[in-house]
Amino acid sequence: MKVVKVCIIGASGFVGGELLRVLLQHSGVEVVCATSRRFKGEYVYRVHPNLRGFTQLRFVEPSLDAALKADAAFLALPHGESVKWTPKLYESGITVVDLSADFRLKDPNAYVEWYGWPGPHPYPDLLERAVYGLPELHRDELVNARLIAVPGCMATASVLMLAPLAKFGLIGAVPPVIDAKIGSSGAGAEGSVVDLHSYRTYVVRPYEPARHRHIAEIEQELSLLAGRKVRVAFTPHAVDLVRGIFTTGHVFVDKLPSEVDMWKYYRALYGNAKFVRVVRDRLGLSHYPNVKYVLGTNVADVGFELDPRTSRVITFAAIDNLVRGAAGQAVQAFNIVMGFPEGEGLSQIPVAPL
Amino acid sequence: MKVVKVCIIGASGFVGGELLRVLLQHSGVEVVCATSRRFKGEYVYRVHPNLRGFTQLRFVEPSLDAALKADAAFLALPHGESVKWTPKLYESGITVVDLSADFRLKDPNAYVEWYGWPGPHPYPDLLERAVYGLPELHRDELVNARLIAVPGCMATASVLMLAPLAKFGLIGAVPPVIDAKIGSSGAGAEGSVVDLHSYRTYVVRPYEPARHRHIAEIEQELSLLAGRKVRVAFTPHAVDLVRGIFTTGHVFVDKLPSEVDMWKYYRALYGNAKFVRVVRDRLGLSHYPNVKYVLGTNVADVGFELDPRTSRVITFAAIDNLVRGAAGQAVQAFNIVMGFPEGEGLSQIPVAPL
Amino acid sequence: MKVVKVCIIGASGFVGGELLRVLLQHSGVEVVCATSRRFKGEYVYRVHPNLRGFTQLRFVEPSLDAALKADAAFLALPHGESVKWTPKLYESGITVVDLSADFRLKDPNAYVEWYGWPGPHPYPDLLERAVYGLPELHRDELVNARLIAVPGCMATASVLMLAPLAKFGLIGAVPPVIDAKIGSSGAGAEGSVVDLHSYRTYVVRPYEPARHRHIAEIEQELSLLAGRKVRVAFTPHAVDLVRGIFTTGHVFVDKLPSEVDMWKYYRALYGNAKFVRVVRDRLGLSHYPNVKYVLGTNVADVGFELDPRTSRVITFAAIDNLVRGAAGQAVQAFNIVMGFPEGEGLSQIPVAPL
Amino acid sequence: MKVVKVCIIGASGFVGGELLRVLLQHSGVEVVCATSRRFKGEYVYRVHPNLRGFTQLRFVEPSLDAALKADAAFLALPHGESVKWTPKLYESGITVVDLSADFRLKDPNAYVEWYGWPGPHPYPDLLERAVYGLPELHRDELVNARLIAVPGCMATASVLMLAPLAKFGLIGAVPPVIDAKIGSSGAGAEGSVVDLHSYRTYVVRPYEPARHRHIAEIEQELSLLAGRKVRVAFTPHAVDLVRGIFTTGHVFVDKLPSEVDMWKYYRALYGNAKFVRVVRDRLGLSHYPNVKYVLGTNVADVGFELDPRTSRVITFAAIDNLVRGAAGQAVQAFNIVMGFPEGEGLSQIPVAPL
Repeated sequence: MKVVKVCIIGASGFVGGELLRVLLQHSGVEVVCATSRRFKGEYVYRVHPNLRGFTQLRFVEPSLDAALKADAAFLALPHGESVKWTPKLYESGITVVDLSADFRLKDPNAYVEWYGWPGPHPYPDLLERAVYGLPELHRDELVNARLIAVPGCMATASVLMLAPLAKFGLIGAVPPVIDAKIGSSGAGAEGSVVDLHSYRTYVVRPYEPARHRHIAEIEQELSLLAGRKVRVAFTPHAVDLVRGIFTTGHVFVDKLPSEVDMWKYYRALYGNAKFVRVVRDRLGLSHYPNVKYVLGTNVADVGFELDPRTSRVITFAAIDNLVRGAAGQAVQAFNIVMGFPEGEGLSQIPVAPL
Repeated sequence: MKVVKVCIIGASGFVGGELLRVLLQHSGVEVVCATSRRFKGEYVYRVHPNLRGFTQLRFVEPSLDAALKADAAFLALPHGESVKWTPKLYESGITVVDLSADFRLKDPNAYVEWYGWPGPHPYPDLLERAVYGLPELHRDELVNARLIAVPGCMATASVLMLAPLAKFGLIGAVPPVIDAKIGSSGAGAEGSVVDLHSYRTYVVRPYEPARHRHIAEIEQELSLLAGRKVRVAFTPHAVDLVRGIFTTGHVFVDKLPSEVDMWKYYRALYGNAKFVRVVRDRLGLSHYPNVKYVLGTNVADVGFELDPRTSRVITFAAIDNLVRGAAGQAVQAFNIVMGFPEGEGLSQIPVAPL
Repeated sequence: MKVVKVCIIGASGFVGGELLRVLLQHSGVEVVCATSRRFKGEYVYRVHPNLRGFTQLRFVEPSLDAALKADAAFLALPHGESVKWTPKLYESGITVVDLSADFRLKDPNAYVEWYGWPGPHPYPDLLERAVYGLPELHRDELVNARLIAVPGCMATASVLMLAPLAKFGLIGAVPPVIDAKIGSSGAGAEGSVVDLHSYRTYVVRPYEPARHRHIAEIEQELSLLAGRKVRVAFTPHAVDLVRGIFTTGHVFVDKLPSEVDMWKYYRALYGNAKFVRVVRDRLGLSHYPNVKYVLGTNVADVGFELDPRTSRVITFAAIDNLVRGAAGQAVQAFNIVMGFPEGEGLSQIPVAPL
Repeated sequence: MKVVKVCIIGASGFVGGELLRVLLQHSGVEVVCATSRRFKGEYVYRVHPNLRGFTQLRFVEPSLDAALKADAAFLALPHGESVKWTPKLYESGITVVDLSADFRLKDPNAYVEWYGWPGPHPYPDLLERAVYGLPELHRDELVNARLIAVPGCMATASVLMLAPLAKFGLIGAVPPVIDAKIGSSGAGAEGSVVDLHSYRTYVVRPYEPARHRHIAEIEQELSLLAGRKVRVAFTPHAVDLVRGIFTTGHVFVDKLPSEVDMWKYYRALYGNAKFVRVVRDRLGLSHYPNVKYVLGTNVADVGFELDPRTSRVITFAAIDNLVRGAAGQAVQAFNIVMGFPEGEGLSQIPVAPL
């Protein structure tokens, strides 16, 4: 297998750590740099103790020079930072895998509305060339991409569970309700006081219940599939997990599909998907998706139920927010771009019970 | 204060244990019996180790004779069992506080549909006399009640958060979506394999997502308030908590109310409620309800948010399923019936962080 | 009941919050001030959301003037801060309940060794007058105390479990091993990065395994009981709890006592103790102490086992670190000082399962 | 790579599930049967939902015939069951990897004392041929072994952390104290009432504090290393984890070694060990072992600290009880026996934060 040199810009956070873990297990990749302003000079295993014994890499100061030694750069930077790095990297011929939101939205004006930017996106041409890195929906475009906008974690779960309904015309006038539950690692490795263990344990509480930023990309992708503007009623909740996102979609439909049809819709999209399992089983320990059974992996579990009483299709998705919702999906998309097997570096079976 | 003698029928489960805890701290109550078929003869503190040092009571075999020594009986029995005990207790002049579902539904036929009974409820007259023990909605009826049907835990949270909307005409044609999250204690002290710690930790998973039994009482109560038949789209999820229910209501409205109006509606119902806090705060550590801040108490936190993008009112409720969702609410209702101060035995401030 | 006015200096942390909770439920206390430099002017319920609805108190700037309006001051300040406040408060005739370590150690030089002070304790006379506020050991002295040094959380558990052995001569030449397990709330409400939920969940790890500061007070108290210098081999561990301390004492003895003797020793010290339960039961769900059954309360559970193979007495203690290990024990000692019933404000039965 | 056919006898429990997970990722193994009396005929993914999509294997009735189709059998059976299967399998030329205790103890009489067998072990010759499957201590013997007795989970952690001290003569007259902390998965997939999530969450409690069965194998192995009879003072505790064991060793020594010497002792045993990390770092997020950083893997983290005050060496070990403490270590030993690379199937980097 050929070897692609990669640099991880912003490697000290949770997503950076997971990129390191995945890429260190990737037989076609050499990690040539991992940057951190705060920890430069430090061994990466001191910040990511799980990596002790698996790498002697040290953090380096983030710099274009460092990145230019690589064939591909993974940007695990805060929103608004990636956009400063990407144009130069892209122009230098480097493949850019951006894990921020800076290239996810196709509409340059959307950044004003959803991310509070002072004006429209400054690189509309790059926006156009960027591919939204959800492989199950954009595989063909990824093959020739050089700029990948890795989807947001809650968007990944939401879009995966609702895509079959959007594509097959089930989403009607009532906006789908997406009720999401997410672990603490979504808040990142720096955290604020409400992310302290004592405050964050034993909670269920909503946050940004009416205007979470991932709404923009969810609506973009579902609208694309539906062929018309789709709005979603999205409300996330903090629950007592470190990892994991569970999304529940409540979709009121004009006419309830049959169970057979529902299987058909999900299989049409995911029948050949390496990393999507449609979970719906009347027997056994697990009848629907459950975050427990995807932790630490790139697997996305989706499923559905029918509610004739309210003419509602209920959909479910469970993913690991740091893997399928970030580092893993980034590598999956990168593999497609680079011509690697899609699952390279990502083939671990979920561990259970965990 | 006068002393009321009470018997707890079915005292070895979680609800029974919580009834014991609350009633042992009630200055107007003497617990004269606590029954358990399985543990008869055993000290109650051996089954409820938290009670060690607080009572020397022993379980006795459940029997009508035992119960008849009391002025009031709390029935913490499985659904379908209470209905066997209640008529005789009631006829004997004993006040019955039933924590099962057996007297919650006013429509005798609903038991066929929702609880799989072979025929309509055998005691329609008692059904009529039973008062649904949600004090904030049925206080006046409780004053003269002798048979209290304590609401289900998820129904309590759902109805409390949606009652203002139902009463003030905000619920329209689209069924409110109620997305619930619940801890493991809801499954009871006997549990099945999926309730084992290893299987039940680190989960988010739906269960009975389209047809949970509490739908029946939620719709009954909301319809009563709205003055017309209301349907709800209810889906509960197991999350990694021992205690606690969090419900999120997504209500599509024809015309979005103002925030001021919303406060008005909630205050109209709960302005004088001892055990309901309307939580909505732009400052501080907690902006919306959170199960963390009601644990171990009878307090119900409710709140709301407005989503103009989808013309949606979002409502929230957080309760402790074993206290406000069972034993605590039972005692609150009992206090009203008996003329005790409503908070007697229930006045503990929530402990935090827990 | 008379009413004592109290001021809580340092009321925004976890211990401050618990002092507020307990004292708001105390029928002989009026909380006249709660100070916080950071949150002055803010409602206390915004920092302690559990208190919402139970008090309209606001934080005030810490000042001697504020404190002087009270009859008693509870100091929930960092180590090294209390010593600046105490002399003036004490001289003003105010009863001081200090929850820091600043007056726990009788030897003025110990502060150099254990707390890194530049010289011996500056107020040796106050040290002498201070009473170590462990009521089960120092009740008589507390009656006339005006300066209470509330024990450290891990010291409370360690001393309570080992006191009977120290007093009855069982501690020999080998230092007792004390292996402690503690929840995250011990680190306080400000926390560092390792206290973030993502880092602090799913851990067992030692910290300060050879030189934790509580060793000094544990050895002081056990030496006092034993009548000779006792050393302990103390190692604490962070475990995945918010609250709770569990200590295990491994004591090698020259001659193994009988079980009957062991009961005698524990009963001699705790037979009449309102807040100590000796837990040792061959039947039921709980054979030894367990943090689960003391949470949120001032109850300390202690117990023991005998290991003839290694001539070892194993001792156990379980407490809530913020209640029995801080705010609750402070109020228990305060009650003795003030002549209130020892359990006033502290009488809640533990809630379970939690 | 050659392909070894393996059969897993007792594949429906937690250890069986982990054997399946590891062996399905092993490039030199074909799993030809997985037995379960209770679930025969059922897809294994219905009992182990994490395996959904990774295997279409079904459970079969346990039988000698089934096992005889394999080259090697992994026995994940209750203690006392393996001994019924092993002789026949062994005689048939099959390599037996036994995860029970039935062949761990070299002294046939020890089974009477520790496992309550009615008489000495019935197959003393097989006991002699069995190799205690702790690769870091018995690698040479494993090369030619055909019967592997996989160590107990708590024994693995205890022996790994204390082996350097035993080997280099540091263990003196005072029995090392081993204070262990373990997650709920150690109790297995069937569990009793105290293993229910509601009862098992938020606990720290000892169990079998003076006479846990793993003492026998710990003493056997340490005595072997020390060249004389070593006794240990072992006390395990249930803590609120699903997976993970943390052991703390408190060893009183005649003369405290230097830190340099300690490193020498640990490096002597583990310098080349693929799966042991010596964790002792003054910098970074993790100074000592922590269960958090080994979860889901075969990695064992060990470490130490020195306490001159009590002339004590403190040792630590953190492992995943189901991987390094069972299925993973079994496969590691099996790899040595079969001539596979030691890490085959076991090379995943730990995932963090989890």
